[in-house]
Order: sequence, then structure tokens, then C-alpha cells
Amino acid sequence: MQEITSRDNGKLRAFMALCREKKERDRAGLCVLDGVKICRDAVMRGQTLRQLWISEDAAERYPIETVELSAASDEIFMIRSSAAKRLSELNSPQGVFAAVEIPAETDVHDIASHSRILGLCGLQNPENVGGCIRSAAALGFDAILLSSDCADVWSPRTIRAAAGTQFSCRVAVTSDFAASVGELKNAGVLTCASALHMDSVPVTDIEKDRRLFLAVGSEGQGLPDDVVEACEKLIHIPMSGSAESLNAAAAAAVMMWELRDGSILK
Amino acid sequence: MQEITSRDNGKLRAFMALCREKKERDRAGLCVLDGVKICRDAVMRGQTLRQLWISEDAAERYPIETVELSAASDEIFMIRSSAAKRLSELNSPQGVFAAVEIPAETDVHDIASHSRILGLCGLQNPENVGGCIRSAAALGFDAILLSSDCADVWSPRTIRAAAGTQFSCRVAVTSDFAASVGELKNAGVLTCASALHMDSVPVTDIEKDRRLFLAVGSEGQGLPDDVVEACEKLIHIPMSGSAESLNAAAAAAVMMWELRDGSILK
Repeated sequence: MQEITSRDNGKLRAFMALCREKKERDRAGLCVLDGVKICRDAVMRGQTLRQLWISEDAAERYPIETVELSAASDEIFMIRSSAAKRLSELNSPQGVFAAVEIPAETDVHDIASHSRILGLCGLQNPENVGGCIRSAAALGFDAILLSSDCADVWSPRTIRAAAGTQFSCRVAVTSDFAASVGELKNAGVLTCASALHMDSVPVTDIEKDRRLFLAVGSEGQGLPDDVVEACEKLIHIPMSGSAESLNAAAAAAVMMWELRDGSILK
Repeated sequence: MQEITSRDNGKLRAFMALCREKKERDRAGLCVLDGVKICRDAVMRGQTLRQLWISEDAAERYPIETVELSAASDEIFMIRSSAAKRLSELNSPQGVFAAVEIPAETDVHDIASHSRILGLCGLQNPENVGGCIRSAAALGFDAILLSSDCADVWSPRTIRAAAGTQFSCRVAVTSDFAASVGELKNAGVLTCASALHMDSVPVTDIEKDRRLFLAVGSEGQGLPDDVVEACEKLIHIPMSGSAESLNAAAAAAVMMWELRDGSILK
């Protein structure tokens, strides 16, 4: 274990960059878990903690968890609680962080073989991206296609919002979302777009005996026109009254539930 | 129109108290809408704006909306943009606020006549309460029972999260949630609790030809034991894998969708 007490420590600066910058995460192939539970979940999934960062306060407050996490870690760093505050984006961080490997990115060809696939296009809020991935993982949509302008799926905030479920999904990022939808269609996947267009059908009308892809856009913008055109079916959720609507995360959860592959859920 | 330039203005202090304190809202019978769209929605619903507060910046940025909202307002106050920042809990407020009347509270007897009723117990986060109410309004659960320890349904944050949909629902607050569940049961409502207990049944197993009540607890705590015992059915959402779970708002949306009264939605 190393004790780090200086702000200017090179290891601390490098870890701070992992917390804050996608570029650094991509370069190192590492992402950061912020919080006791999310670190323990990673160990339970069998992930190695490449680095464990613990504040002095946290070591006192979570003695058993600290031992458990230390046993699964390659390197351990003890830091001041003030440094832990700077590492985290939370108001009251627990002071427990880990760096773990980012899973190998996959491609459209690979995710096309999954029974249920979620597509997120243009979702810039990490909490929305994470929330949708969490629902997807719970409802059997275990392959995710993201447009490259979505929030980074491996940022600490997105990982927290997803409760770490992106580690149990296959994730592909595409710079041409509409073209990727076309590839899924060519691979025999039924491609659906969540859209309130005039010609959209109720989500209950979709046949569920095929592999399915569901594309969801941001709450403000919806899906781009070329994505809507690339999808075979436009679907919506029947609702009460014209002024009411579900928020994007709730709508995605309801659609994934309705389109679920019943053989996966129990 | 009054122009208010002093921090010490009594009207401004009173409006600030409405923004921040439930006690003041209850005393005045008024709540605060924060943002252009949410104020316009209120006017579209036919609500009178008792007070309209606009910053100098906002009047320049939203000239048409300012005129439209002014026409529906009893009193209009123009304030400095710095004052608007203090009124709002948002990082970048639009600088447009309105005070409107809080709808008359209702009771369990009244909400029992509704086809679909949502119960929220112990949800202390305004965003969660508002998000669940928004989904409820969209999916035909237009009567809401809240435990008195839930976040205030008429706070600016809850109203924003609900996109103002609490104004089109019937809302009852109870200090004895379990007793209120008993009253609903006696009134012939099928009472369901979202719970992961051993004896809970899949949400798909519930008969939907009766009036239905769905109780949802906080993500951390779940529902209190006496509420679970008071409900006739314990229900859960079938999911993929043991580690995955939906967040509270997504789970509530999926359950309300599955338990919907199809005759209400279109």
C-alpha cells in the first residue's frame, strides 16, 4: 500500500485524469468506479481492481469492505479525504474508488446476434445513458448500440447511473448510427424506432418472435430523421391525454418491457 | 408591473419563502412554477398565474412568451437576473417563475373511485416523486396517494420533475399509509405492493378488470412491513439475472404500464 499525501503526486494526477477525461480512459483502457457497493459488485463479477483508492475516513468507516476490496486489488493507494472529494463528482463521496479495465468494444456484427438490442442515439446526459442501460440489462436487452455523441458509457457518472450493468452487456459505439441500423436490418433484426410520428404503431403491435432492436433518442430532440427512416417500424406507447408524456428513461423501460424476450426473464 | 431592485423587498422575500418552504406554501395555498414551458403549460390548463416573476434577461430572451404569460397573470414583478438565480434551485434558471394555487387536497374516499391509483411511500427525493407522478399521469394512474414523509409534491423541484402533471391528478397525503391501504381495500380496490418478497407474483399475473392500487417504496428501503401486510397482492417484475434490477422510477413505470386500464390509453 502507498500513502499519498501530496496533491502533486503523479499517480494521483493520473488517476484524477482517468476520473475526468474520456481521452485518458481510452488511452489507458481503464475506467473508474466510485463508491463501495459498485466496487464490491465488480469484485463479485470477477473483475480485478487494477487500482484501489481509499480515503483515511473510508478505511475507518468501511473496515471489512476495505479488506475485501484490497484482497482483489493489484495496487492500493491511501489518500487524504480532501483528495477523495476532488476525485469524485458526488457531493458526499464515500472515498472508495477503483480503476478497472474497460471491456473490449464490440461491433454491430456481434451485437446483431443478440435476441434484444437497445440503441441510444444522441443522449448526452450520463444519468440518462446509465439509467437506460440499467433497465436494458434488467429486461434482457444485453447488447447496446450507442451513437458516438452519447455520454461516455465508461465515465464514473454513467457507471454509477447504470449500477455497473454495462459490464454485463455487450457495448458497441458507432459514428454512423443510421448505417449501423441498416446493418442490423440486413442481419435479420427487426429494427424499431421510438417515435411519435403520425405513422407510428402502438408498441403492443410488434411481433416478438424475431431478434429485436429498439432505438431511443434524446428527450428534447428525439431520433434524427435518417435513423427514423432506417428503422422498419416506428412505435409509440399509448398514453392518457395529449399533454402527458413519459420521460425518456421511463419510456425506454416500458418499451423494453413490452418488447421483452420472455424466455430470458424470470 | 412592479420593478423590484432591492434584495430586501418584502414581496421578493415572501416569494422566496414560497420557493423554499413547504410551510409557507401550505399557509399561502400557493406553489411555484420555475421555467417558461411549465408556466405556459399552466396557462394552457386554464390556471391563473397569481404572480408572475420575470428577470430582465428573460424578458429580452422570451418576449412573446412574456406577453402571453403576463396576460394570464394577476400581478407581475420584474426582477434582476441575480435575484432570479437566488429564487431557483437550477444552475441556469430561465428567470421565469409563477405562483399558482395548490389544488384542493383530496382524501382516500375520493381517490378510491378512480380506476388506477398510485401510492408512493417514503420517497424523499423530489425528482423520484415527480418522475413517478409524470409516468402515472401518462399511463392513466390519475389518483395519487402519498405518505406524509414523501418529498412535497408541490415543491418547485417536484413540479419540474413531474412536468406539472400533478395538477391533472387527484392527490391525497396520508400520515398512516397502511391504514389508507386498508380503506382502499374496503372500498373494493385491489391493493398491490411492489415487493421482492418470496411470495410475490409476477406483475403479469394480476387481474386487471378491477380498480387497482399500486404501492411503491423508496429504492433503498422498499415498502414498510405494515404496508406490505396491508396489501392483498405482492408483485414483482420478472428480470434477467440476479444482480440486475430496475431503478425505482423505471420499475414503477413498467408496473403501471403492465397494470394499465387499456380503455384510458390511446
